[in-house]
Amino acid sequence: MQVIQSVGQMQQFSENMRTQGKKIAFVPTMGFLHEGHLSLIDYGRKNADVLIISVFVNPTQFGEGEDFQEYPRDLVRDCEIARKARVDVVFVPEVLEMYPKDFQTYVTVESLSQPLCGAFRPGHFRGVTTVVAKLFNIVKPHIAIFGKKDFQQWVIIRKMVKDLNLDIEVIGLPTVREHDGLAMSSRNSYLTKEERDSALSLYQSLNMAKDMVASGERNVSQIVCKIKDFILSKPYTKIEYVKICSPDTLEDMETLEDKALLAMAVKIGKTRLIDNTLLEVAKEKANATDHVKIQNP
Amino acid sequence: MQVIQSVGQMQQFSENMRTQGKKIAFVPTMGFLHEGHLSLIDYGRKNADVLIISVFVNPTQFGEGEDFQEYPRDLVRDCEIARKARVDVVFVPEVLEMYPKDFQTYVTVESLSQPLCGAFRPGHFRGVTTVVAKLFNIVKPHIAIFGKKDFQQWVIIRKMVKDLNLDIEVIGLPTVREHDGLAMSSRNSYLTKEERDSALSLYQSLNMAKDMVASGERNVSQIVCKIKDFILSKPYTKIEYVKICSPDTLEDMETLEDKALLAMAVKIGKTRLIDNTLLEVAKEKANATDHVKIQNP
Repeated sequence: MQVIQSVGQMQQFSENMRTQGKKIAFVPTMGFLHEGHLSLIDYGRKNADVLIISVFVNPTQFGEGEDFQEYPRDLVRDCEIARKARVDVVFVPEVLEMYPKDFQTYVTVESLSQPLCGAFRPGHFRGVTTVVAKLFNIVKPHIAIFGKKDFQQWVIIRKMVKDLNLDIEVIGLPTVREHDGLAMSSRNSYLTKEERDSALSLYQSLNMAKDMVASGERNVSQIVCKIKDFILSKPYTKIEYVKICSPDTLEDMETLEDKALLAMAVKIGKTRLIDNTLLEVAKEKANATDHVKIQNP
Repeated sequence: MQVIQSVGQMQQFSENMRTQGKKIAFVPTMGFLHEGHLSLIDYGRKNADVLIISVFVNPTQFGEGEDFQEYPRDLVRDCEIARKARVDVVFVPEVLEMYPKDFQTYVTVESLSQPLCGAFRPGHFRGVTTVVAKLFNIVKPHIAIFGKKDFQQWVIIRKMVKDLNLDIEVIGLPTVREHDGLAMSSRNSYLTKEERDSALSLYQSLNMAKDMVASGERNVSQIVCKIKDFILSKPYTKIEYVKICSPDTLEDMETLEDKALLAMAVKIGKTRLIDNTLLEVAKEKANATDHVKIQNP
């Protein structure tokens, strides 16, 4: 396994691989790797010839007062994990090479960056799309793999790739959870024992919503109210948002139809956590009847 | 010579060439090709294995009330010229494939897009950088060639390529002029005979400025005033701006030092023309004396 720090060296490595006809998979990360990252890495290993991950805590996606300084870092441990997962290259650029003093170019995905986390973290997604565009141009992958725990990020990057005609396949993989359901996140390391107990309410509320939908509830505000009450009944919790929206446009929904995204951001003490799930409305009676008809013509 | 319309086909063609180790040169144009374009095409022919040009009148770089609809188009003539210039591929995408209905991703180079033309054409450079980023991702060139008649555009694209780590060499070539000095432009076709006479004042004023500098003038406002008076003395002229600034940062200068960019935009009737030149301050006496010393030690 190679650790590459320089942009030029990384580009040359990838260019050589491409000229040799090798397929490159890329997993961009902010490091402090966990099982969630490993599921992306495994997918990359199985679906390409060359597997590159980046470890870069990207300053432009953190706002004022956010946790850029405190964000957990452990490059030695990350490299050990990457080596065991048969990663070929860990790309670890320096902040000053990525953002030199007169840096002034940004990539923005407009509408999709406005709602949900975008409303509470102004500039966050501009930082994400800019750094991902840069990393794509440096690592030159054929496929890039993201976790759907950051569902909005995944939708935005998929849109950026389509709009800018980047010749890259964007893969989104399901959230990986702890044994009790807490979504894997590097930020879980911030939680005290008591906060972690409260943090479970995010996952539990996703299941509550699924149960409500299964019982026939279609009214979005009913579901959202119930979830908010439940989460706020736990100590240390402060809700940023709980929303049910279109998984494609991220626009608010009033009544559940077909598929909907339930997404939330909640502060547990000082730690901001996000989680989401897809709510799928079971087939309507009309279809069920059709099905019966086919079975019993 | 191939004419390719589809984004996917263009990407596949270029990917094949790159895998074969071929060097690709790219000249993006809005068509209605003239000698200025041909100098870029010739450079590409001489410095790469594969030469691709695009012909695309890009709607996102035209503002309200600008000449998107009227912009001169003649694809048959352009293809004939390209064929004679030994272009390998003319890429002619459709507006709707480049900008589908829900398009929402933009590339912005911030500070450099503010002054000069940026101040008079809001959104123009955002349109330019977005379409050039898209074309780069579709055509996948090793080198891309631009004319320095659009000096600010060239500086902005060079900056975008650096900031976004695009692995592309950006070449800027000198303005090509008619026999009497008028800078080549597809928009020259809008000019009446009388307007064309007035349009010559742009080139003439560049020379006036050079003469002033050669005579020792270092005061920027003196030079700018004289130029403005001269241009306004011609019929049909309306000045948008005449500026002397740093050729790197495009920031205003008060006193000439070393190299400066003299840039202007002038409306001749309804036709907006731009032109520019570099003003170079001759070596100061100190250096000249040094030189003499070396010659006569």
